[in-house]
Amino acid sequence: MDESLLKQRRSTCPINHIIEIMGDKWTMLVVRDMIFHAKRSYSELQAMPEGIATNILSERLARLERWGLLTKGRDPQDGRRSIYALTEAGMQLIPLLVEMMIWSHGHTDAVDMTTGLAATMAADREGATRELRARLERAHGTSQT
Amino acid sequence: MDESLLKQRRSTCPINHIIEIMGDKWTMLVVRDMIFHAKRSYSELQAMPEGIATNILSERLARLERWGLLTKGRDPQDGRRSIYALTEAGMQLIPLLVEMMIWSHGHTDAVDMTTGLAATMAADREGATRELRARLERAHGTSQT
Repeated sequence: MDESLLKQRRSTCPINHIIEIMGDKWTMLVVRDMIFHAKRSYSELQAMPEGIATNILSERLARLERWGLLTKGRDPQDGRRSIYALTEAGMQLIPLLVEMMIWSHGHTDAVDMTTGLAATMAADREGATRELRARLERAHGTSQT
Repeated sequence: MDESLLKQRRSTCPINHIIEIMGDKWTMLVVRDMIFHAKRSYSELQAMPEGIATNILSERLARLERWGLLTKGRDPQDGRRSIYALTEAGMQLIPLLVEMMIWSHGHTDAVDMTTGLAATMAADREGATRELRARLERAHGTSQT
């Protein structure tokens, strides 16, 4: 993590700390796509259904890198292409995303949801976290930097 | 919940759903103060250490009310004063806040933290959620609308 970022925070409250990193629609959507859809490239991320502008995507990726939540590397299959990987700190956001999924499912039926997915998550949060992490680790393979 | 809000969402992804409601620094700080500090009045909320502007606070409170996360009522001790109470949907955000606390504590020591609080939460997430909810219900008392 770039320590200079800590000086710019508006308070030292731990909730504020994560809000300074993640408290922005686009940042959270980028992390969602990396965690639930195992996206790793700029073009995959840009294709999110919410329509992210390229300058915003670049800024948020750089910001997540500065905060130490992801690393940027070169695609071993195509050296001109950057790929992104979640760090351990990034992976540890999984339980937060699981809670977001459970909450949304519990409070509106106006969301797309694979049948039973949120119920499975709610019944076994730790299991859901473990499974998502295992899937991500497989997707990241050995190319994680 | 004001159903017209659903039509303005950028996608029907469940993660996007909660992001549309909560994916904003100030909204999350308002919810933090209501959950962890059991704040109920405008003036208590305005006193947050991060310094929220009055127009932003008013807008975020109205927004949380439209989404059905809080209700606005009259203070029984002072009829001119509004007080806010979390609804059941608002209370169900507690596990999310608990995860935010645990994550921040695990990823920097540059946060204020009552000794052992995050460790206690991490060891027993459900217990922490129950305890926070019980404390909130006591604070809301019978005046919850």
